[in-house]
Amino acid sequence: MADPNIPQLRPGATIGILGGGQLGRMLAMAAARLGLHCHIYCPDKESPAFDVVRRISQAEYGDGNALAKFADAVDVITYEFENVPVETAGFLARRRPVWPDPNVLATTQDRLSEKQFVTSLGFQTAAFAEINNAEDLTRALEKIGRPSVLKTRRFGYDGKGQTKIVAATDPALAFSEVGAEPSILEAFVPFEREISVIAARGHDGRIASFDVTENEHGDHILRRSLVPAAVNVAVAAEARRIAERIADALKYVGVLAVEMFVVPNGAGHKVLVNEIAPRVHNSGHWTLGGAATSQFEQHVRAICGLPLGAPAPHGPTAMVNLLGSGSDRAAQLLGLEDALRDPGAHVHVYGKRRVFERRKMGHLTAIAPDAESALERGRAARAALSWVCET
Amino acid sequence: MADPNIPQLRPGATIGILGGGQLGRMLAMAAARLGLHCHIYCPDKESPAFDVVRRISQAEYGDGNALAKFADAVDVITYEFENVPVETAGFLARRRPVWPDPNVLATTQDRLSEKQFVTSLGFQTAAFAEINNAEDLTRALEKIGRPSVLKTRRFGYDGKGQTKIVAATDPALAFSEVGAEPSILEAFVPFEREISVIAARGHDGRIASFDVTENEHGDHILRRSLVPAAVNVAVAAEARRIAERIADALKYVGVLAVEMFVVPNGAGHKVLVNEIAPRVHNSGHWTLGGAATSQFEQHVRAICGLPLGAPAPHGPTAMVNLLGSGSDRAAQLLGLEDALRDPGAHVHVYGKRRVFERRKMGHLTAIAPDAESALERGRAARAALSWVCET
Repeated sequence: MADPNIPQLRPGATIGILGGGQLGRMLAMAAARLGLHCHIYCPDKESPAFDVVRRISQAEYGDGNALAKFADAVDVITYEFENVPVETAGFLARRRPVWPDPNVLATTQDRLSEKQFVTSLGFQTAAFAEINNAEDLTRALEKIGRPSVLKTRRFGYDGKGQTKIVAATDPALAFSEVGAEPSILEAFVPFEREISVIAARGHDGRIASFDVTENEHGDHILRRSLVPAAVNVAVAAEARRIAERIADALKYVGVLAVEMFVVPNGAGHKVLVNEIAPRVHNSGHWTLGGAATSQFEQHVRAICGLPLGAPAPHGPTAMVNLLGSGSDRAAQLLGLEDALRDPGAHVHVYGKRRVFERRKMGHLTAIAPDAESALERGRAARAALSWVCET
Repeated sequence: MADPNIPQLRPGATIGILGGGQLGRMLAMAAARLGLHCHIYCPDKESPAFDVVRRISQAEYGDGNALAKFADAVDVITYEFENVPVETAGFLARRRPVWPDPNVLATTQDRLSEKQFVTSLGFQTAAFAEINNAEDLTRALEKIGRPSVLKTRRFGYDGKGQTKIVAATDPALAFSEVGAEPSILEAFVPFEREISVIAARGHDGRIASFDVTENEHGDHILRRSLVPAAVNVAVAAEARRIAERIADALKYVGVLAVEMFVVPNGAGHKVLVNEIAPRVHNSGHWTLGGAATSQFEQHVRAICGLPLGAPAPHGPTAMVNLLGSGSDRAAQLLGLEDALRDPGAHVHVYGKRRVFERRKMGHLTAIAPDAESALERGRAARAALSWVCET
């Protein structure tokens, strides 16, 4: 018999997605393949996800009328970004099932709660301290040392709301630089590699995690991911164990990403948790075409009460982000014809009209006999692409 | 330098698609991955393709105002079904580029012209004769024999507009059975296998054909396709040569399907052309997930002037159609959770609410070490699925 607590969303049902970026877009496309409809809710009228669904709500996240109508129009609600206002999630959860559970947001939206949660499970993070004023910071620096990083507890992403503290940094200035907001100080981690694990957990508690991904950031933005990560089996197993334990402890439903650092430790390594993203994640884009089931389909399956798919990779895969450059402008992508010439490279373009520095405009994936060749192919295809201002 | 005659449609451009069925739906999803927008034109308000695009025109194909607005809103026009009225295609072609060229429709919409075109290229078809009245039919039966098949020259598909002529059939009755329309009589072909080749031709004349597919029909509807087809290399090469020559002779731009019969011929085989479909085709659905580039992406690339992708298959693949049953009703798909359990089987559901006998509701693909195992997996996954009336 079907468990009445597990939703049975089937073709014809509608998934409501909060957020209209590329993650919502790729979620909607994965849902469509299974005959599920999506309804995108986003304030931005140029949302890339609007382009691939029939039903949209263009409204602010605080607009009660629009939220109520949205809830009425859908069968289940999910989100593609972690900074959904808690009031919004709560308002919706009183009307429709929301997965992952909005309680997860309370933990992951606050860097301090998140780190306390991770350490409560027995996992390591960078050393950290709660900072509410410049005096806290001065004291914490004595313990944690420099260099270190001051980060606001809330609403930071892609390097926003954080500042590096070096030998010469004045604590009071640093605190004002992050807006004098409640913050945490984090020790600098001399990591050898950055990795992540994308894990999915279903309503039935089953978990499927994808292979460990190795990530390279530049200027706080993900530049590329590689699978398999160049880590030994012990590190890979530990990374997956951490992500799966976190998913379990949160009674999570859907796909989450856990970003981690691999740090030398004597003759071996240790794995520190950096961040939890309660959503599909840029470092899991390689699964789209690179694994038997993509992270997007996996999330759809999980929240709908469908069985999780196989996470097995097709082979060594690289994902290279296609980032914008220059100041904000309407621009056209050039060079697609060249980028498409390599049969092993796959181009994904998010359909964003406006380009600016570091904006995520698309990504490329490449499968090859080994990870380095995959990366080379991905990079070569990306190098063909550029923008020109619309005339 | 770019050839000014070759369109340069790039991310941000809009493709207009005539027809809103599953083929338009899968074309639109392939276009979205490349950042291209699609605008679907279809009279049916429940068109499955409407669900995956932002812009639609719900209007009749003879509605000049709606067609003119549609043409103004798009950069290039294509179609997902071969029975686009020639006037509609011509009206649009005076306003926007239409690919494949509407001239192709004149050839392929008329079974007589199509067969004459194929034989003019030196390829074989079933013996055929033009039938304009019962007397023509009586005379032709003396030459072509029984059993044979009488088919209307125009607007036949999935077995519509045709009747089998056996020993006892009265020619006058048979002719009235197909509506006393201009028709052709075709000899019965004692084929060993049915195969098809999906080929793409670009504006630059380059051609890429997918591996030969073996098809099994039941009650005039495609039931399943298998790649590789169980034919020898000579037959496979001949089948591809035929499809590629046809694409070339039509100066075709886009994806076309050529359905063929493999007939024993002495110690070997001969290949007869059965039908040309100037569009993506059900027997090419296996390419979605089963080949480096899908037929849908290939068609988008071709009509946009982008380089064709690699057609290489990932391995032995089976495609099994998910057909409706019973009388017309609103119904829900059951059993998806079971169909999704095999990690090697992929389920595609077209989002159609109404189910009826033989309606194409979705399809399943499976990749396995050999074609027969792939077929078994596809069939097993399909067997899990059924419909229940909406309550």
